[in-house]
Amino acid sequence: MRGPMNLVVIGMARTSFLEQPGTPIAPVFAEGEPATLEILPEYRMGLADLEGFQRIWVLSWLHQAEGYELKPVPYRDTVRRGLFATRAPRRPNPIGLSCVEVESVDAERGVITVNGIDLLDGTPIIDIKPYVAQVDAFPGSRGGWFDGSCDVRTADARFAGGGADAQSKR
Amino acid sequence: MRGPMNLVVIGMARTSFLEQPGTPIAPVFAEGEPATLEILPEYRMGLADLEGFQRIWVLSWLHQAEGYELKPVPYRDTVRRGLFATRAPRRPNPIGLSCVEVESVDAERGVITVNGIDLLDGTPIIDIKPYVAQVDAFPGSRGGWFDGSCDVRTADARFAGGGADAQSKR
Repeated sequence: MRGPMNLVVIGMARTSFLEQPGTPIAPVFAEGEPATLEILPEYRMGLADLEGFQRIWVLSWLHQAEGYELKPVPYRDTVRRGLFATRAPRRPNPIGLSCVEVESVDAERGVITVNGIDLLDGTPIIDIKPYVAQVDAFPGSRGGWFDGSCDVRTADARFAGGGADAQSKR
Repeated sequence: MRGPMNLVVIGMARTSFLEQPGTPIAPVFAEGEPATLEILPEYRMGLADLEGFQRIWVLSWLHQAEGYELKPVPYRDTVRRGLFATRAPRRPNPIGLSCVEVESVDAERGVITVNGIDLLDGTPIIDIKPYVAQVDAFPGSRGGWFDGSCDVRTADARFAGGGADAQSKR
């Protein structure tokens, strides 16, 4: 069995977003924004065959999201919601899950160019998985409070840094 | 900025799968199998509003997946593929990503009942996010080698424990 649950960095997101306010809250709201994922040399062999996939999952460590609250007000709502029913970045484990469209993969140089991503520049990447429609795509899946939510597409400052309302857990 | 990238356990999967061989390799291949996610008391308030969502993402720590190789042979193929173009459990960060259908949520008792999941009994849960079709569902997204792969639906022993071909990284 594995030991402590410690993550390793496999790469870094390079984007044009330097602070949370104004950053798209989902990759679909960042289309056309240039972004790359730079993968460390020791992991580049694992990028083989990736270019055949139209989309990938990018799992990231949201390094600027400190602490969390269990009932935040999401970007697209005006009332508090259970944290696990939101995609808010401040979480017990601040892991980001982004479905992005692949433009090109340079496995030798370790560079994946994507069509838009919802991550701050410098965000550590912890995993990449292929998007497989057969197991990942459920159009029309009922979306709770999100289905009737407002059409906010970019972040504001509410989850930036460790706000006074966030439980500081580390 | 956050400190070391250490994960906390927020709950545990309770399933009928006790070993990798025979375990479904995706939740869609486990439909009808009873499974629950037991969430620790300190996080249960964050389960509010979750029941409105038809599906959720379950992020887990694949605690029995030791080491990794960068060019494994996936369950559904017969040749080696780049690790990041597979969903193989042995990865630099062994994080599982499962889209499961919610049957019921008992926030007070911290129990989410789901319709099938691809996890071993006792797998630690590290995050739960709502499935939001608008940002997660891309039917018809081109799926690389997977699109032409064989129809294997359950695991065999190839990624069980730390095989001789796995780089032991911890």
